[in-house]
Amino acid sequence: MTHIADRMSDIQPFHVMALLGRARELEAHGRSIIHMEIGEPDFVTAQPIIDAGIAALEAGQTHYTPTMGLPALREAISRYYQSHYKVDVPANRIVITPGASGALQLAFSVLINPGDAVVLADPGYPCNRHFVRLNEGQSIAANVDANSNYQLNESILKESWTSNSVAAMLASPSNPTGALVSDNELKAMHAFIEQQGGVLVVDEIYHGLVYGQQEKTALAISDDIFVINSFSKYFGMTGWRLGWLVVPEEYLDAVDRLAQNIFLAAPTLAQHAALAAFKPEAIAIFDQRRDKFSERRDYLLFALREIGFDIPVNPEGAFYLYANCEKFSSNSYEFVSDLLEKAGVAITPGIDFGDNAADKHVRFAYTTSLENLKEGVARIKKYLAN
Amino acid sequence: MTHIADRMSDIQPFHVMALLGRARELEAHGRSIIHMEIGEPDFVTAQPIIDAGIAALEAGQTHYTPTMGLPALREAISRYYQSHYKVDVPANRIVITPGASGALQLAFSVLINPGDAVVLADPGYPCNRHFVRLNEGQSIAANVDANSNYQLNESILKESWTSNSVAAMLASPSNPTGALVSDNELKAMHAFIEQQGGVLVVDEIYHGLVYGQQEKTALAISDDIFVINSFSKYFGMTGWRLGWLVVPEEYLDAVDRLAQNIFLAAPTLAQHAALAAFKPEAIAIFDQRRDKFSERRDYLLFALREIGFDIPVNPEGAFYLYANCEKFSSNSYEFVSDLLEKAGVAITPGIDFGDNAADKHVRFAYTTSLENLKEGVARIKKYLAN
Repeated sequence: MTHIADRMSDIQPFHVMALLGRARELEAHGRSIIHMEIGEPDFVTAQPIIDAGIAALEAGQTHYTPTMGLPALREAISRYYQSHYKVDVPANRIVITPGASGALQLAFSVLINPGDAVVLADPGYPCNRHFVRLNEGQSIAANVDANSNYQLNESILKESWTSNSVAAMLASPSNPTGALVSDNELKAMHAFIEQQGGVLVVDEIYHGLVYGQQEKTALAISDDIFVINSFSKYFGMTGWRLGWLVVPEEYLDAVDRLAQNIFLAAPTLAQHAALAAFKPEAIAIFDQRRDKFSERRDYLLFALREIGFDIPVNPEGAFYLYANCEKFSSNSYEFVSDLLEKAGVAITPGIDFGDNAADKHVRFAYTTSLENLKEGVARIKKYLAN
Repeated sequence: MTHIADRMSDIQPFHVMALLGRARELEAHGRSIIHMEIGEPDFVTAQPIIDAGIAALEAGQTHYTPTMGLPALREAISRYYQSHYKVDVPANRIVITPGASGALQLAFSVLINPGDAVVLADPGYPCNRHFVRLNEGQSIAANVDANSNYQLNESILKESWTSNSVAAMLASPSNPTGALVSDNELKAMHAFIEQQGGVLVVDEIYHGLVYGQQEKTALAISDDIFVINSFSKYFGMTGWRLGWLVVPEEYLDAVDRLAQNIFLAAPTLAQHAALAAFKPEAIAIFDQRRDKFSERRDYLLFALREIGFDIPVNPEGAFYLYANCEKFSSNSYEFVSDLLEKAGVAITPGIDFGDNAADKHVRFAYTTSLENLKEGVARIKKYLAN
């Protein structure tokens, strides 16, 4: 007798993991694979952070930190909100978490009762709806597309909102589309949600990886918004598992209690190392890397459109291109599998991001060198020519 | 309008955190405080692990590992089950988690439907019941005391089991009592649970810190048991946040899917560093430290009994003594607060471990030097003499 909880029927795997497994198998047999499926920067963590990590180890920083995080790191992030965004966010509202995953869990477990609904953009990051499900909530998939710049907006949100809705969540820049939400739409949505007595949750984990403009934080609009951020993307610290959650004052006590119980504290070493992420020499490295991502985006966007992928809106951030592949296949999962087997190029099928026209879409990640991207594009061209 | 989910009314803080905060305040004002409340080893992580961490950083090991963990670490743990316990546990059933906290969450989120009940020992580690609550389950507090060696046994379990029970969980050695479950009782409980179609979850995070005998793993009884373990205690890696879950074969797919979604992977650096934990030179350090804990236990057990604390059963493991303080106070929280203010000794009130005679009990942690323990005992004696 196996006791697998009902929620597990609704919590899907990342389908790309099976493809990644197959890609590794092919590589083990000597095949060359171009990886354009991986959602993490290819760069090793910047040297100033590595050095700070080594120094922390040498100093024996191996015990737990306080649950809410190392005070110096919370203060450093608070200063960063001031210097980078010109927004006041007091350190006591910044909770250090084990990755943005930890922040998502804190937010949803504190906010959602069984049966409560949360409006989420489709396509979107699949873990969001799984965290809602984990808390016995119900996620409402609000379809977004090129007409809404692949983001929620006030009118979509109003249509999607139900009497049992308690929150809406959006990511800007978005995974998988790289789209930014506009300041005006965000304000309008915030006002609508406030009027409904609900809560707005904004994922800003791709902040810093925005090209040709300066992104704004939702915290500039109001301090009643939950904001999720991470050291994984712009700061390049994926494997360290470090993120943060900015919490409205009245939820702080509940978030603290929950964090004490579900993870005790984020990894100590990562927290000490992350202090170096705000040094000018580290920021200079991150900005150079951002420029590389920008260059890769420009190349890949042009090349994929030239091949015939439909990417109707220019993605403004993150490191993804979300492309319509209908011209080549009406089953994006088969398309992606075939591309891997025959062309040695790994990309992610739309199904990993929801149900909305998922069969017609794929995601390209430009988390590999320009040289590799060029080789990947050449392989795709050759594959499609056959 | 604040949307704090109902579950948060049942998820309590660690009361000791408020005391710890007060202790830090007193220290900031120059008071000397003896800390006997802290649930983590005082030792810095052993040098071979620190060295392996530095080497991993120098080698740029900063990306994600696979969700289920670094294959080499899963294999090292599998070999450890063979060498230390003479039990076969294949690496594919060992899931690396962000601390034992991550393992607890995986187990309970995969096992429990809303309304399902889990039998837990009271006193016990409070997070267990909070993880049950987080999954909308119901925890059944089964009172344990000196008569049952502060552990669940077959007769208590049978009395506590209800028609909606799906699992029972126990910890051996236990926090807060340091008690081991006997092999025969564990077998009998396993048989009963099997007959009921339920699941047994065993917390073995204090394994290695057992004094004067060799502990056995529940996995020797059956491979249908969920076993939680950690690198925090015997291996001394608290701040690294690393644990593992041994999963019965038929739950592996669900656990993998859930882990992909809720934390992606455990910290990479910790996983590389932990590989060094199985080297003979590291094990030698852990065993020396275990001998120190053993010496501290012997001293403190004798000294506290001499003062008049009632500790009816000799604790056999972990680094805690659970003592009846009724002779001095019928309100252990007040007693603990007063002891901190007047004597400068911090211990943990019984209320942090459940409801069962919590007012009459306190927990002493011997996670500080013998010298400090002696000073603490002297202060307590003096306080009680006034």
